[in-house]
Order: sequence, then C-alpha cells, then structure tokens
Amino acid sequence: MAFDPASLTFDANGLIPAVAQDHATGEVLMMAWMNAEAVARTVETGRVTYWSRSRQAFWVKGETSGHVQRLIELRIDCDRDCLLLLIEQEGPACHTNRRSCFYTALREGEERIILDPMV
Amino acid sequence: MAFDPASLTFDANGLIPAVAQDHATGEVLMMAWMNAEAVARTVETGRVTYWSRSRQAFWVKGETSGHVQRLIELRIDCDRDCLLLLIEQEGPACHTNRRSCFYTALREGEERIILDPMV
Repeated sequence: MAFDPASLTFDANGLIPAVAQDHATGEVLMMAWMNAEAVARTVETGRVTYWSRSRQAFWVKGETSGHVQRLIELRIDCDRDCLLLLIEQEGPACHTNRRSCFYTALREGEERIILDPMV
Repeated sequence: MAFDPASLTFDANGLIPAVAQDHATGEVLMMAWMNAEAVARTVETGRVTYWSRSRQAFWVKGETSGHVQRLIELRIDCDRDCLLLLIEQEGPACHTNRRSCFYTALREGEERIILDPMV
C-alpha cells in the first residue's frame, strides 16, 4: 500500500516529532516537527522539510544556511506518532553551528558542553 | 552548576520528548515523554522513567516486562526542549517485542517492516 502521511498520528496541533539521525554515523542530530504536508514534501523532494512552530511556516532545512538534510530513509514508530529520519547532513545541523543539537551532556551532576561549533 | 530538571523547557502539558538511543550501537530505540519529576527520577536512579500519557502515571521502563533501560548519559538539546538518553537496553525496547520501535521503513513508496520481534 502506498504511504499516506495522513495515516500518521498527529498531535492536537497537527504535528508529529521527527528525529534526524546521521545515516552513516548513527549520531542523533536534532529533533523538530512536521505536519502532514511537511512529511509529504520531505518524501517527494528528498529534502527534509519541517514545520517551524515559532514561524508557523514550512522550514526547508538548510534553505538559507546551506546546511541541508537529504533524506536517505524515513522510519515510522509502532504508534505512528514519531518519525525517524535517516539523513545525510551538510555541515552542522544545529543553529549554533554544532554538528548536533545535543551538545550538552549531564556528567557528574553538571551540564557539560561536549561539542564545539564547526569551523 | 548542578542540573535542575525545572530548567528544561516543557510543553503545555508539562512534558518533554525523550529519545532513547543504544549507547553502544547508536540505534534509536524509541521516543517517549517525561515530566520534570520523571527526569529527576531517571537521573537519580539511573533507571529510565517516562511519563505515560495514556495512563497518566510514571512509567519505569521495564518494570513489568523486565526490559529495563539503564541511563548511561543524558543529553539536552540547544533549545532545552528535547532530551537524548544514551542507554543500555535490556531486550526489546518496543512493546511489539522488537528491539526498536522504528521498525517500519518507507522504501520505494511503500511501508516495509524491517525488524522481526526478538525471540
């Protein structure tokens, strides 16, 4: 059966969380949100497109920064309410210029920055 | 500065999404939700504890199934509104008995089951 984004489970705002993972290294890069149309555009174009909750607009990742995400494979979880995007990331995924948004680790009860911005 | 779960950004329901990743293999296993107290309990006990939205109760992962998650490291994203849990997973993470909840892949426009239940 052909995939239909409407068959996913969206929250009260019509959104589903999408976790982006580097397909080659397995590094988890970021989490953002998609609506059904963003899912459809991502699958159709192969360019990862989120829904920006702050701007209330489609967010073609990297459109202005050049740090695009190419979709390698989309995966759906058992409850159909979360997506895993296996991607190829151009440069940093994070707006702080770090490869991953998850650059703060809790170690010995303290928060530690474990990634430097990319040069 | 000591880590304070209240310093995280929670949604309107007081929840934050938490992505569980196998610390050794990098496999993304599941996504679930935590409130501030679940984050605190997870950090204190080293046993991953979510907040079950359906049951509206704490959910000590594996408490009944034995498929526990031991926290290796907690990471926080740039917006402080998503957590990445590096964990050691006992057996399957998914209630379908599969190692990961993300066992459905979109390939050539079709949904394909790519993981079998563990025996």
